[in-house]
Amino acid sequence: MFELKNDQFLRALARESVDYTPVWMMRQAGRYLPEYKATRERAGSFMDLCRNAELACEVTLQPLERFELDAAILFSDILTIPDAMGLGLYFETGEGPKFKKVIRSAADVADLKVTDGDQDLDYVMNAVRTIRRELNGRVPLIGFSGSPWTLATYMVEGGSTREFRWVKEFMVQQPEAMHQMLDILAQSVISYLNAQIRAGAQAVQIFDTWGGVLSGPCYEEFSLRYMRQIVDGLIRENEGRSVPVILFTKGGGQWLESMAQTGASCLGLDWTTDLGQARQRVGGRVALQGNMDPFMLFAKPERIRQEVETILASYGKGPGHVFNLGHGISQFANPDHARVFIDAVHELSRPYHES
Amino acid sequence: MFELKNDQFLRALARESVDYTPVWMMRQAGRYLPEYKATRERAGSFMDLCRNAELACEVTLQPLERFELDAAILFSDILTIPDAMGLGLYFETGEGPKFKKVIRSAADVADLKVTDGDQDLDYVMNAVRTIRRELNGRVPLIGFSGSPWTLATYMVEGGSTREFRWVKEFMVQQPEAMHQMLDILAQSVISYLNAQIRAGAQAVQIFDTWGGVLSGPCYEEFSLRYMRQIVDGLIRENEGRSVPVILFTKGGGQWLESMAQTGASCLGLDWTTDLGQARQRVGGRVALQGNMDPFMLFAKPERIRQEVETILASYGKGPGHVFNLGHGISQFANPDHARVFIDAVHELSRPYHES
Repeated sequence: MFELKNDQFLRALARESVDYTPVWMMRQAGRYLPEYKATRERAGSFMDLCRNAELACEVTLQPLERFELDAAILFSDILTIPDAMGLGLYFETGEGPKFKKVIRSAADVADLKVTDGDQDLDYVMNAVRTIRRELNGRVPLIGFSGSPWTLATYMVEGGSTREFRWVKEFMVQQPEAMHQMLDILAQSVISYLNAQIRAGAQAVQIFDTWGGVLSGPCYEEFSLRYMRQIVDGLIRENEGRSVPVILFTKGGGQWLESMAQTGASCLGLDWTTDLGQARQRVGGRVALQGNMDPFMLFAKPERIRQEVETILASYGKGPGHVFNLGHGISQFANPDHARVFIDAVHELSRPYHES
Repeated sequence: MFELKNDQFLRALARESVDYTPVWMMRQAGRYLPEYKATRERAGSFMDLCRNAELACEVTLQPLERFELDAAILFSDILTIPDAMGLGLYFETGEGPKFKKVIRSAADVADLKVTDGDQDLDYVMNAVRTIRRELNGRVPLIGFSGSPWTLATYMVEGGSTREFRWVKEFMVQQPEAMHQMLDILAQSVISYLNAQIRAGAQAVQIFDTWGGVLSGPCYEEFSLRYMRQIVDGLIRENEGRSVPVILFTKGGGQWLESMAQTGASCLGLDWTTDLGQARQRVGGRVALQGNMDPFMLFAKPERIRQEVETILASYGKGPGHVFNLGHGISQFANPDHARVFIDAVHELSRPYHES
């Protein structure tokens, strides 16, 4: 078994006893850190940074130099798979991700090929290996991917959207082509995440950023079904230790019972869901991760500590909780407030883990 | 008592027996109708259309000429109150509403005055009176307002937002000033809706478009609390008939139990919430309105009918359901598909109301 100096995160995901509630932050390597902006400047474009293993490693480790985080997460983009499929990912300042080519017909779908994680996304695997080496067992490394539905959303819309007009039109008008696309994406995500695990990722998270825009039956049919396929296809043990899978559907608070039956180890919650009620609903079948509103970091330190205490009390005593924000940290957040948050989780959670 | 030729909508809201499930569509007077675009062209700007009672009446009635709708809804904007407060509402093509002046400090809040519905928004009351006269008892007229939290969101952000950065920063950094603003807004909404009721609105809906971006405790404190204040302050009987109040929090599916305890007559549901489960959860305390995904209108007619049947079956037998979309109809929807939807509700719902 590999040596891991801090395994609180993996223990919490396995619902084993811990000394304190482990914590990490979605998008913890990001624009709120001046040192990230400096590295990003040196790298060139956002995708140049993702493709440079040394620099991707550098920004992955930056938040760990500042804060007592219990996990590192691979620095990359959720849209690497469609980019590898030839859709031409690029970023326009202030507008988020865009694709040069969009998928709008069955013929477009027929042209898509399953991505091979090792061959087509070797730059990501290089980053994973580099980060694992540099982490040197300090904390576990999380790998990740977008969910098939979330990837499909960007591929059909061609970028960010508020309305989801095209992808929903595609879904209701051409469900067979949509299912074909989602199956190709699910196979690609399996290959991608397994390659990350073999390269050294010790846990993986599936980001289903846009599952929450669907009705319950459509969520089951077009998002959850393919995440179940992924969970079934993943390597679940590596380096003598189990590899936990975290499912995060933003806006998915109404569907936790079905999500808990996928075989995932943990469900990520956004801040709209009550953590204590969620724990009751999933009945100990999975761990839970979350769920402070990222914008709570804009409050005064005392208010942040109070919110951390409220969330800890909501979950209650015992293991199975990984603290996190309910979504990525804002680029406008004050790093000092992130520290207040992380330290508060460690300090205030100890009483909840005393036997 | 006034004469009303079709009172199925009001009967459903009162959870009285009906012949079929009544139906209307949020944003039913809108850009998906070519006749709307023609009137809008004649009027000038969007706000010119809202301010012209004859033309506002014309567009309100347009969808009723085409479809067998069971209610009309006042044509207006949800941001008339902040506009009356002097914030300078305007619309930029493709960008949604904007304000010339934003609220970002306690001093800004101190300058806000409670809006008097009759005095400050007389153009809306003229529209209500005109529409009631022209409707001539055909179907009931719904009045509406944005919720205090939703209005505050636009007033602080200065327009549409995806992140809610400024309003959440204001909320967590200056909760007292935020509460002061929300109280001023709640008083204004009470005055505004009561003026609409006196002018002829036979039901009112409070649109809480952005309540769903809050955590549960923040939703209670910053949104629901002020909607309760409004419900308590409204005229609940007029023209010898009770005036029902519909609360619609988009993304509020996790909080239906608390919403049902406000004294509202009906809760609006978006499409992410299961209607049958919602009915069980509110336990007959309120009627329910909703909840087909507006983008389902992009499907083939047979698929639309199937979706209507699924939603009717989910609610089950008996009264208390008003059919609607889970959000406003898309500007890209095909009017013929809207007709399929409306006719399907009427036709397929009859078996659910036979005794």
